[in-house]
Amino acid sequence: MALSDLSGRLLLGPGPSPVSPRILQAMATETLGHLDPQFLGLLDEVNEGLRRLFGTQNPTTFPVSGTGSAGMEAALVNLLEPGDTAIVGVKGVFGTRLAEMARRQGATVVTVEGDWGRPLEPQRLVDAHREHPDARLLALVHAETSTGVRQPLEEVGRALQDSETLFVVDAVTSLAGMPVEVDRVGVDVCYAGTQKCLGVPPGLAPITFSNRAMDRIRSREHPVSSWYLDVNLIAGYLGSERRYHHTAPINLIYALYEALGEIREEGLEARFRRHREVGRRLQDELEDRGFEPFAGPPEARLPQLTAVSLPGGRDEGVVRRRLLDEHGIEVGGGLGPAQGRIWRIGLMGHGARHPVIDRLLEAVDRVLPQS
Amino acid sequence: MALSDLSGRLLLGPGPSPVSPRILQAMATETLGHLDPQFLGLLDEVNEGLRRLFGTQNPTTFPVSGTGSAGMEAALVNLLEPGDTAIVGVKGVFGTRLAEMARRQGATVVTVEGDWGRPLEPQRLVDAHREHPDARLLALVHAETSTGVRQPLEEVGRALQDSETLFVVDAVTSLAGMPVEVDRVGVDVCYAGTQKCLGVPPGLAPITFSNRAMDRIRSREHPVSSWYLDVNLIAGYLGSERRYHHTAPINLIYALYEALGEIREEGLEARFRRHREVGRRLQDELEDRGFEPFAGPPEARLPQLTAVSLPGGRDEGVVRRRLLDEHGIEVGGGLGPAQGRIWRIGLMGHGARHPVIDRLLEAVDRVLPQS
Repeated sequence: MALSDLSGRLLLGPGPSPVSPRILQAMATETLGHLDPQFLGLLDEVNEGLRRLFGTQNPTTFPVSGTGSAGMEAALVNLLEPGDTAIVGVKGVFGTRLAEMARRQGATVVTVEGDWGRPLEPQRLVDAHREHPDARLLALVHAETSTGVRQPLEEVGRALQDSETLFVVDAVTSLAGMPVEVDRVGVDVCYAGTQKCLGVPPGLAPITFSNRAMDRIRSREHPVSSWYLDVNLIAGYLGSERRYHHTAPINLIYALYEALGEIREEGLEARFRRHREVGRRLQDELEDRGFEPFAGPPEARLPQLTAVSLPGGRDEGVVRRRLLDEHGIEVGGGLGPAQGRIWRIGLMGHGARHPVIDRLLEAVDRVLPQS
Repeated sequence: MALSDLSGRLLLGPGPSPVSPRILQAMATETLGHLDPQFLGLLDEVNEGLRRLFGTQNPTTFPVSGTGSAGMEAALVNLLEPGDTAIVGVKGVFGTRLAEMARRQGATVVTVEGDWGRPLEPQRLVDAHREHPDARLLALVHAETSTGVRQPLEEVGRALQDSETLFVVDAVTSLAGMPVEVDRVGVDVCYAGTQKCLGVPPGLAPITFSNRAMDRIRSREHPVSSWYLDVNLIAGYLGSERRYHHTAPINLIYALYEALGEIREEGLEARFRRHREVGRRLQDELEDRGFEPFAGPPEARLPQLTAVSLPGGRDEGVVRRRLLDEHGIEVGGGLGPAQGRIWRIGLMGHGARHPVIDRLLEAVDRVLPQS
């Protein structure tokens, strides 16, 4: 089969999100060497653009050469040593994954668990930290992709500020879609993926480390278990030495560069507003049709990722497959305990536009009555 | 700066290699979801194509979502547990890296070291295995990118065949440029990168695990330290369950798909011959100009990667920079003890063509007399 024979899809799942023609074309730019002065200049600009998105001055800010989960792993393997305690908020798949990765580093993991579909009460996290003040880190998912819930960060950030515990935040589905204010909130390590609100194909994980986090990493007793994700080594490539570490995914970085240009032109505030407005409209329109929101309370619902159960107890899998096959629209199913119970609809990046909602609703209105 | 303002380069370093227009354009194909039936079908074809290149029937064959070094890490983290012994052949940067990664997994590393620029005597590796018959693995770099040396594998493969020790081979710079006969030689885990003889931009690491290796991995005592690279979890996504693990780098996989198509059309034998012929010609032409081969004996010189010192004690860095700035040609410098002493010239994938050599030699003939 030729790639040109693939049927195009409107990507309205939990990611990857639709990629604009301009960013797709950026991927086709001729490959440069990873030590070429032109490429290194581009990478410096990318890192500067990522700082703006993360809301940080952290010098150690760059795209990890892997997908969002590699960003999660990079955060944990660099911060944790065997025997450390890690406090992890768990209320969906990605909190569960954080806990699992932390355990694999030999950490003692204290989970603060909550209902899938609800944010964790910040006071419970603050209390867990009071019980484990020596914890090396406390990790939270800002925008839980498996449930569509937004987790408040500020209270926890304040509580950790003057402690020894580093604050780790998963911004995979929030970065470039809503404010992620690393420095203001007091986050030490924050990572994301490119295939959500950034609108870049999957394969890179923007990440930032505070100076406080870097100091801790430099005074580790054991080497980082992953050579590939060791931020000390990566910083040698990104820093003034430009020491070869591994070959960066050049063409994906072109796409990220182009996306950061698009975002600068649109303006961050306008981009956040766009995500907010289309998300609210979609949620209203779906409620009008009898869909029920999975996430709540209302102010905790992510605009960029809407989790809903279908009206009238319909089989979500059957309807979802018809949307794909008959209308070329991809929406996501549920994960874990929500499997078979919900849809997850992403309006992210280039997909967060009103005509996209029109097309989705038209298809839903055709498929639903017959299902 | 716009990406279209970047100056094109002729990539004749140790990778990335030049990417053909057809493969570049494949990257710009509209992104599909990682669970889309069309994408999963494509991925099955990619894995089948990789089996042909690796010369294997191993079901567990796929592209790791990271660059070549992530492939190396995937091999080691899955096979090694704390306290295991690993025998590693070291005669260049990538053998050194293998040893370093193995140590980070808590393994006791036995190195068999040799001169940079020479292959290791197979008998020395067989002897090391006789001394450490309980070693979990023996790892060798097939084509050492830092020195241009080809390492013979067959004798070691035979010696390990009926032992408990798994044979790990780094084929980053050999795959698709010379035969890598995993099943015939008796290799258990073999990995590569896409940005060398495959001619695909960096960002993926094809890998294959023998059934024997998979059995060992399934009976591990400790979980794999890396969640991202855990082959048990990745196999769940690739296998019939299609269980979500992480979001694959879709557009890079398009490029790999296209490259495998190009290779099928050319034929593997013809491709190997092409690499052999252009490499031999370049090496002859450079010797005529007073360059001295770094690697030897002659039969151990990789055709796809030529390491040479410059005639007349010229400063390699100055001449190399002039090639880049005045002629848009990238060649590589030396690494480690060879830093400042050699050039590394890659003729890989789309770059392994006679007109490319013509262009390089014309530039060398202009720059060298003035340097």
